[in-house]
Amino acid sequence: MSLKKRYLMTPGPTPVPAEILLSMAKPIIHHRTAEFEETVKEARAGLQYIFNTKNEVLLFASSGTGAMESSIVNCFSAGDSVIVARNGKFGDREKQIAETYGLEVIDLEYAWDEVVKTEDIARELAANPAVRGVIVTQSETSTGVLNPIKEIAEVVRAYDETIMIVDSITGIGAVACETDDWGLDVVMTGSQKGLMLPPGLAAVSVSEKAWRAVERSTLPKFYFDWKKYRKSIDKNTTPFTPALTLIQGLNEALKLMQEEGRENLIERHSLLAEATRQGVEALGLKLFAPPEGRGSAVTPVWTPEGIPSGKIVKIMKEDYGVTITNGQDDYKDRIFRIGHLGYFGMFDIITTLTALEMALTKLDYDFEQGVSIKAAESVFLAART
Amino acid sequence: MSLKKRYLMTPGPTPVPAEILLSMAKPIIHHRTAEFEETVKEARAGLQYIFNTKNEVLLFASSGTGAMESSIVNCFSAGDSVIVARNGKFGDREKQIAETYGLEVIDLEYAWDEVVKTEDIARELAANPAVRGVIVTQSETSTGVLNPIKEIAEVVRAYDETIMIVDSITGIGAVACETDDWGLDVVMTGSQKGLMLPPGLAAVSVSEKAWRAVERSTLPKFYFDWKKYRKSIDKNTTPFTPALTLIQGLNEALKLMQEEGRENLIERHSLLAEATRQGVEALGLKLFAPPEGRGSAVTPVWTPEGIPSGKIVKIMKEDYGVTITNGQDDYKDRIFRIGHLGYFGMFDIITTLTALEMALTKLDYDFEQGVSIKAAESVFLAART
Repeated sequence: MSLKKRYLMTPGPTPVPAEILLSMAKPIIHHRTAEFEETVKEARAGLQYIFNTKNEVLLFASSGTGAMESSIVNCFSAGDSVIVARNGKFGDREKQIAETYGLEVIDLEYAWDEVVKTEDIARELAANPAVRGVIVTQSETSTGVLNPIKEIAEVVRAYDETIMIVDSITGIGAVACETDDWGLDVVMTGSQKGLMLPPGLAAVSVSEKAWRAVERSTLPKFYFDWKKYRKSIDKNTTPFTPALTLIQGLNEALKLMQEEGRENLIERHSLLAEATRQGVEALGLKLFAPPEGRGSAVTPVWTPEGIPSGKIVKIMKEDYGVTITNGQDDYKDRIFRIGHLGYFGMFDIITTLTALEMALTKLDYDFEQGVSIKAAESVFLAART
Repeated sequence: MSLKKRYLMTPGPTPVPAEILLSMAKPIIHHRTAEFEETVKEARAGLQYIFNTKNEVLLFASSGTGAMESSIVNCFSAGDSVIVARNGKFGDREKQIAETYGLEVIDLEYAWDEVVKTEDIARELAANPAVRGVIVTQSETSTGVLNPIKEIAEVVRAYDETIMIVDSITGIGAVACETDDWGLDVVMTGSQKGLMLPPGLAAVSVSEKAWRAVERSTLPKFYFDWKKYRKSIDKNTTPFTPALTLIQGLNEALKLMQEEGRENLIERHSLLAEATRQGVEALGLKLFAPPEGRGSAVTPVWTPEGIPSGKIVKIMKEDYGVTITNGQDDYKDRIFRIGHLGYFGMFDIITTLTALEMALTKLDYDFEQGVSIKAAESVFLAART
């Protein structure tokens, strides 16, 4: 067809609503003004709402990786022991960053289709009481697998000198993340995910326990020095030039998210994920994530036998304008991933399932056309409207 | 679901692509400038491409009804005879306008689900050789019924003093309209239809034969005086303040349409309409338009027995954010209409059919979920990608 609309169904960047785009298109203001202080003040309150926390949430002009690195250099010193529990590409990255700064990593490695086991962390903590931090990815972008953050934090909480660091870059806004209730010391996210913004902004919430760790840290830092950000944010400003328009957009995003409501937001993502899962299973495909680790941000699916997932991704994009992604690293051509975190509604799932059905038809995969839509419709019909 | 994206599936206004919205958001220029003359020049060429004509296409800051009225007051005089062939609400309006200006209307009235019959026009013309004009709606917005403009124009062409006036407001850009090859003297459209713009701009192409009629016309006119517009457009300007940003947007629209190509544009609409028809028929619903009068701009569908169409429209809009329309006048609760002219791709049809399936499920209509998607997929899969 001569007109292909584009549908971005990836776990970041995610589509940006028109309201946010328009708020970022406003004339540039200067950042050392009362007007910008109001903007920062509004962002602080909104972020605390979305992070479920009374902690201060710091904002960086950086990608999510910058936020990850900031948590290592601010909370630890060279030679400190940390547990990195990893079951995907972004867990691997946490380990790399920790090692780059000379931390002793107690490495809990899992297969990508497993969830991190709380008992392993409990065992390692008991055996190594000097461990200063436990680092876990909540929602693995590389696989969509969800780790049991709440349970793990319960274990970590008993250790006064050990902080719980959560990479919730693909989690916040899509899955429950009760920062204060669960006792999460450091939680980070990036703008191009559940916050529905373009990339370029990262946010990190820091608990009092984490601030005590910051006091002990001797690793060198300048741009990512949390203390500078805390001092500035107390005055509703930033230590360095902020990503001005992204923060304007953030406020619009936070307004939309607050209007929708935290619980509704999580419920919506849960429905989108359930409809996607029911849809692909109706096609006879197998879900990659184990039942106990199925998140609402990304749905990873094993490709049918004999069809490299890249072929599905290519047809969906080139013929139908629907962008999903295949796997990463070892899973490159073995899985595909449908992102549905952020500005997505039910018909984005319907569109994706239909494009998937058409791609599978072209690849001679045997199934009954329309069954995935029937399955997704049933999920949506059973939900509140 | 707490986030409802909105889908506008009506036969006008139609969705406006981001490229066009952005072009209309440029800083306002003055209209008595060389810059605006360039804008008009570009619009003239683009409109001639889309109208398939070497005739000048005049632009009015008005709705489509303004263009309809302009064709009456410019081409005729009080007491002139015209044939109005009408099978819907907009045909009715042509008759009202003609009568308002004291024309003698030879009224060919058809049921809304019939097409205008060429032989009736041939007969009336033969019986009334003094008839000055034949007025027909190409694509009836009220019903989606397509009238055989090409055939009718062949008949009218034989009469030197009779012009063929075509309301193609819902036609241009969605169905073939070969202004010069078919010998159409006056063809009009509105901006909020196939041109993918907001409402507020109308365009009328005028043949040499029609200009001769204009010379004879004695009806009073000022704002809609075509001669004023012709004199101005020769200098790439307008007699009165133009709808400046809409003309900027028009040029962007014409660029998109030229990039897509006239033939592709018509083929795309034809596919969207075919998928819609196959989809609703798979649900066991009956098409309103007769087989010989099925256009590509709007698909009208008889509502299932016992379910007023307004109920379907309401659930689709309120529960799923998908706006279609019900019937007009006598058909208000008896049909619903799915618009697909303008900026629509295959997944807009999929979305609409899915929302329709869910609404019908809620209304206890008996069918197998997913069948309409299967039918639509088959249409899209059989087409060139």
